Parts: sequence; C-alpha cells; structure tokens
Amino acid sequence: MFEKILIANRGEIALRIHRACRELGIHTVAVHSTADADAMHVRLADESVCIGPPAPRQSYLNMQAIISAATITGAEAIHPGVGFLAENADFAQMVQDHGMVFIGPSPEHIRVMGDKITAKKAVQDLGIPTVPGSDGPVATEEEAIEIARRIGYPILIKAAAGGGGKGMKICRNEADLRAQLPVARSEARAFFGNDAVFFEKFLERPRHIELQILGDGQGNVIHLGERDCSLQRRHQKLLEEAPSPALNAAEREAIGEIALKAMGTLGYASAGTLEFLYEDGQFYFIEMNTRLQVEHPVSEFITGIDLVREQIRIAAGGKLTMKQEDVRFNGAAIEVRVNAEHPVTFAPSPGKIGEYHAPGGPGVRVDSALYSGYKVPSHYDSMVSKLIVHGKTRNECLMRLRRALEEYVIAGIDTTIPLHQKIIADPDFITGDYTIHWLEHFMERTAAAKDGAA
Amino acid sequence: MFEKILIANRGEIALRIHRACRELGIHTVAVHSTADADAMHVRLADESVCIGPPAPRQSYLNMQAIISAATITGAEAIHPGVGFLAENADFAQMVQDHGMVFIGPSPEHIRVMGDKITAKKAVQDLGIPTVPGSDGPVATEEEAIEIARRIGYPILIKAAAGGGGKGMKICRNEADLRAQLPVARSEARAFFGNDAVFFEKFLERPRHIELQILGDGQGNVIHLGERDCSLQRRHQKLLEEAPSPALNAAEREAIGEIALKAMGTLGYASAGTLEFLYEDGQFYFIEMNTRLQVEHPVSEFITGIDLVREQIRIAAGGKLTMKQEDVRFNGAAIEVRVNAEHPVTFAPSPGKIGEYHAPGGPGVRVDSALYSGYKVPSHYDSMVSKLIVHGKTRNECLMRLRRALEEYVIAGIDTTIPLHQKIIADPDFITGDYTIHWLEHFMERTAAAKDGAA
Repeated sequence: MFEKILIANRGEIALRIHRACRELGIHTVAVHSTADADAMHVRLADESVCIGPPAPRQSYLNMQAIISAATITGAEAIHPGVGFLAENADFAQMVQDHGMVFIGPSPEHIRVMGDKITAKKAVQDLGIPTVPGSDGPVATEEEAIEIARRIGYPILIKAAAGGGGKGMKICRNEADLRAQLPVARSEARAFFGNDAVFFEKFLERPRHIELQILGDGQGNVIHLGERDCSLQRRHQKLLEEAPSPALNAAEREAIGEIALKAMGTLGYASAGTLEFLYEDGQFYFIEMNTRLQVEHPVSEFITGIDLVREQIRIAAGGKLTMKQEDVRFNGAAIEVRVNAEHPVTFAPSPGKIGEYHAPGGPGVRVDSALYSGYKVPSHYDSMVSKLIVHGKTRNECLMRLRRALEEYVIAGIDTTIPLHQKIIADPDFITGDYTIHWLEHFMERTAAAKDGAA
Repeated sequence: MFEKILIANRGEIALRIHRACRELGIHTVAVHSTADADAMHVRLADESVCIGPPAPRQSYLNMQAIISAATITGAEAIHPGVGFLAENADFAQMVQDHGMVFIGPSPEHIRVMGDKITAKKAVQDLGIPTVPGSDGPVATEEEAIEIARRIGYPILIKAAAGGGGKGMKICRNEADLRAQLPVARSEARAFFGNDAVFFEKFLERPRHIELQILGDGQGNVIHLGERDCSLQRRHQKLLEEAPSPALNAAEREAIGEIALKAMGTLGYASAGTLEFLYEDGQFYFIEMNTRLQVEHPVSEFITGIDLVREQIRIAAGGKLTMKQEDVRFNGAAIEVRVNAEHPVTFAPSPGKIGEYHAPGGPGVRVDSALYSGYKVPSHYDSMVSKLIVHGKTRNECLMRLRRALEEYVIAGIDTTIPLHQKIIADPDFITGDYTIHWLEHFMERTAAAKDGAA
C-alpha cells in the first residue's frame, strides 16, 4: 500500500479523498492555489504545497506544478479527484512517466473514452447499446426512408457539420420525413455551407441513468447498480438517486450484465461510470466517465462499498475483494448538490460563510469543506457541499432529505437549498416521474406561478 | 399519527427526537431553560416554551411546567428523551392523566424496573439470569460455606446495611471464606452498626453488555442485538460498540431468545435496554432502562432501524412492522461520547465554541447540538456531541473513527476527543480485550507513563 498520496484537487472532493487515505493509514499531500490557503482540504492534510495563483489553468490544471509538488513531498501516487485533471490522459501518462501511480484507469482508457466518437465505436464493439442512427450522412430520400424504418420513428435529422440545435428536425413518420428532409438540407447549407445530414433515433422523454463500475484490471469487474441523474440544468446534475424509480429488476440485471462483460473485455481498472439515456426499457450509451463521479456517495450508501478506498487499493495493485454476487443492495439514497448560487437565477454567490450548521442524525451524510468563517472563492465550481441521505425506502429518503435540508444552515451566501426543497415537494418528483427535461419545465412552471402571484 | 409532539429535553437528544418527528411530518415543541434560549434544539423546533431558570429542578425536571407547556401548545404527546424525566413513572402517569401520550413504556413498567430490588425479582420471574447470591443475610459459617459452594468461588461478602465498598471482601476459596467472614462482620458492625452480611458471585473481569429491545405492547418484541459498553469511568459510559468483540453467535442468540420471551410475557411497549454483566459466556442482569439510551445510534447503524421513529409509532398505537427474523445485522458500529471535559482530569469545561468542524464522509454520523458561537452552559450534563461510525468490520470502524476524531474541531473548550484518540490506539482496545475495569487501569497507566516521562 502507498505511504503518501498527493490529492490533485480542492474542496469537498479533496476532503473526501483525504478521508479515504487516512482510513487506510496513508499520509496526504494537499495542493492549493493562493485562493485556497485557508481551505479545509489544506488544513486537514498532513502536508500542503501552494501550486499557483487562483486561475485554475495556473494552479489546479498546472500539471508540471502538481508533478513537482508530488516529487518534492515524496508522494508515491496522485489522486486527481473529480474535474480538473481527472480525465486528462496526458496527465495520467505524465504521472506514470515520473515513476508515480495515477489513481485512476490507464491513460489509454482515458483517451479512448474521452473522445465521443472513439468512445461510441469502442463501446459498440463491446456490445453496449448506443443511440441507433445512420452512422454517417444520408444520400437520398430512399436511403433516408429505409434507415428511418430500421431505427424506428421518431427520428432526428441533424446537420453533419452542425451544432447548437440548428438545422435539427424531428420526424414522427414517413410523411414528416419526406417533408422535412429537404428543409433540413437547405437549412444545413444555409447555416453551415454543407447540406450533408445524418439521422439519430429521437428520445422524447429520456432519463439519464448511469452505471457505477469498479474493475481491477486483473479480470474482475463489479457494478454498484445505477444512479438516476435525470435532474439536470444545462447538463449539470443537481440531484441524483439510487435506485432509479424507473428501472425494474430485469432491466437492471440486463444492463449490468452487458456492462460487466464489456468492462471485463476492456480490462478496465479503477472506478468508472457508463452513462446512458433510458427510455421505454431501452438503454442508449452517451459516454463513459473514466473517473470518480460527484454523485458516487449515492452508490456507496446503497452498497456499503467505499469507492475511493477501492480506487486506491486497485491503484496499489490490489484485486477486487468481492464478486458481483457479494454486492448487496440496501435501501435507497438521494444526493443533492448544494451550490453557492441563487436558487432561482443561478447567479454565483461566492462570499464568507457566517453561521454554519450541517444536518446530522441517522441516515445523513455531508460531504463538504465548508466551515463558519470560510470564504467561498469565486474562481471555482460553485458546488460547495453535498448532502446525501439513505433510507430503507425511497419514501424514507424523501422524508429524511426534507428534514435534513430544513436544518442545513449556510449563512452569508445564497445556495440551492431552497430549490431542492421545492423540487422534493413536487408531486412529479415524489412519484419519481421525471426526465432530463423535467427540471427546465419545473423552473419555468415555478417562475410562471410566481409571476402569476405577483 | 400525532400532529405535534413536545420534546421534554435539551441538547443533542432533543435534536435527535426533533429529527425523527420531522421525518414523520410531526410538528415539534421545544422546552428550554433560560440558559438554553439560543440552543439548537430551540432554534430548529417549530415552537418553543421557556419553562424556567437554569437549575434542572426548576426547568427540565419541573413536571408541571412541562405539562403546562404541552397543554398550551396543544401537543398530543411528550417524548422525555434521555435523562431528566425519562424514567420518572410519576411523570409518565401525569402525562396520561392530562390526556396526552407519554412516548415510552407504561408507568407501571417504569416503576417496576426503576427499583433495583423489584426489577431483579421481576426479571428473575421472567427467566432472565441475575447475579447469583445468598438472597438475604447469611446466618452461620456453615450456611455461608454451603451457599458459597452453590454459587461457586470467587464470592463477594457485602454488608447488608452497607455501601460504597466498605466491609466488602472477596473470597477465592473456602479457607478465604472462613478467615474473611468474621472480619467482614466486625467491619460491618463498626461501619454500619449491623453485622448482617450477604453474598454475591464475584465477577473478576466482567464486561457490560446490553440488549436493545423494542416492543409494541401488542405481543410483538424484537431485539436489535447487543452493545458492549464496558468502557466506563465511574459508571459513566464513554464509548460503546456493536457487536461486542466478546460475544459469539450462539451466546447472542441465547440471550436474545431469553429477552424476547421475557419482554413478550411482560407486554413491554417502546424501546428498552436490558443491561448485563458478562463473564465466561454467562450473562448477569444488572438493570433495565425503560427508555432510549444515549448509545442507541450504534444499534441503529447495524440494523438500519430508527429507534426514535419506532418509539413514536408504537406510542401512537402502531404495531411493530417487523419480526425478529427481519432484523438484519450489518457490519459494526462504534460511538464515542464527546464531553466538554478535560481529557485527563475530567474537569468540566463549559464555554463558548470557537471554530467548529464536524467530521463527515462515508460511515460517519454526528449527533450534536453544537455550532460555532454556541455557549456550552455549566448547568447540565457535560456530553455535547456523539460521534458514531459504521463499517463492514470492526477494523474498518476503528480506522474510520480514528480519521473522524482527527478531523473533529471543537475550539474554545476542552473535550474528551484526545482521550478517545488514545483509547482507540491502545492494543487492548484494538483487539477488543477490555472489561469494565479497563478504562481506570488505562487512565492510571497513561498517567504513570506521563509521570515517568516528565
């Protein structure tokens, strides 16, 4: 086992990794920008090194400074955390080239999965379902109709050279397709100077469901079940839960088996997440995250497995100590991300924390680096705390989350706590009936209700 | 279910009960002395009533004031918490007489178990093992020898009129007994003016092991396993764990069966604890606590059952929703009591909390009413926080507890945190080899080591 690990991150995730290290008896080295000299991750670490000014590019993304900090302090391994350099294959390679261990998958796996096109190809080859489509430009109307029949309606026409939703058309049947195809082509030509279009199956009400994977690169892979992360705003997750209210046991087992087989073939080592869109019992791969996820505590709560500890053990050459049949799923868990943002406008709200009281008691976990007197800097991600609850049932989680949010006091800054309180009181959320579009509609709905009331 | 509950207590336990109420959608009424106007339990409750000056007898023990507060606020039930009026049968009766529900067992059960002599008799009749003895004064040497043979050596001679250890003699064999009996009689006469003596089996290295019971008074009883509370100083528990490192599965099952049968016969309702001394595979009843215990979170962690919620449900007329075979034991848990005391001298240390940072992360629960800026009053029990950890194994708990204690910052007052850090680093504790006398020896040992070093 390692004696000293450098944690190349900040905030609650740096603290999370520090905790796992200390529980393994490993010394920790924190790195920090000048803006984070007083941060909790620095104060709790055994050693700390200042790696640069506040701007991430000059500190937390400064690979050479981090490698130097590790070399100077004699760290044997580097944990990149979440964000910053966590999915940077060059950094992973650089760590290895300096004779240290990168706590994460191989640079090769990071690279393959880091590119959407190579990732889709790779997982298709491994038998993982992806969004069906034309796999390239569509030449003629006849070809279009034939492909659409194969995929099934509704389909989405996209400009090959496009982006940002421009030139996109939804076709619900063959008549639609005949009518929209020339329009899409002419819009594509107008916007992008290229009339090539391609097709994808259009998902009307997809959920974001992801599968937590843990592999040791020595032939053993387990999954820790799924997380439902459909509650998103501008592709940023706000609340995650497990198990998904939408999945049944057969679907869970089926996607689990596919994932285990694929990751076994790949020889994947460390924690990773396969992200899917899910609709009508079908999974469609979006991307793979070759790192720890912000929402990992949800899976830890329902399985009792410490994902960061396992990452460290695997990086040190250890094998997985359990098989899939040893993974016991217990109850439900929900995580809410507490961001230093206005709960309605989402305007960032850095500043000094006044009074601070984190919820406690049964079934409550707080992963946070906040303390009374701490100044939330303006330079970094706005997430300042994660509140995670566990219960025997989803309903018990909801009751617990409600009371925990109620007693969470973070004075001095705006946070998303009031938003979470509204979300979990909404009948759609209570019944589990939500998709990746739900939160946007919810925000519009509540804004409209407020306007109406004013 | 109740709509409003008055919580007749303060500090972390009041907060604990508030949490259970809010998770059931029940409104809470806090009561407080003038010393506790700013306390967290008051701030989080839906309503609060000041019931008197700081002295407990004038506030938290003032039955009439509490009943009045409940009447005025329209509370339908009163939860007494731990300590203060929690085992006061008169109070339980008074609550009932005022048409409210006492959240705890019947006044009759509180009364029977509240008196050591009636309690011992009652549990003996129910088949629970007690410390064997002469069951009354011993007349002659011949009678003494016969009884001692029946009980088995070593035995303890005690003055019938005595107390405080005076006139007590340990006899390890018959020769001892013949020699010590006249000495004990003359000491008893000298100290207490009465030479009557009685016998009890002497336990050399007993552990304190207690069984958590939950009954609904409608024929259903379950137990939540044992807690080992042998780490005590002057009969005050400092650290509790489950399962006990000393018990094997057969012993656990045997004492559990006896307890279930006894509590079923008694028709016991609510949470309760049977406390035993344990030595060489034998259990000896000490007393029954007819209330929630400070250390209840340990059992909650290993079973996933919320004891306070169950107390409330049972008090509202609900039946237990599970049978013994549904109680799943999962891993290990340890609680440490964080007292506002000097970690070596145990001198009370009230005062204002400066910086405060509670540990978080996986497997950690904090039950505390502390916050930065809070003034710990000098009028009450010194326990200010409970830190509880859970892990798959006892070893995982120890690692987790070590790191959680390390990151627990409570500035401005002395606490027992450094003492706990020393205890859990001791080889005896790590191997689980400790008795009710261990902590005293440990304190002497560490004091001697310090003197030697100085």
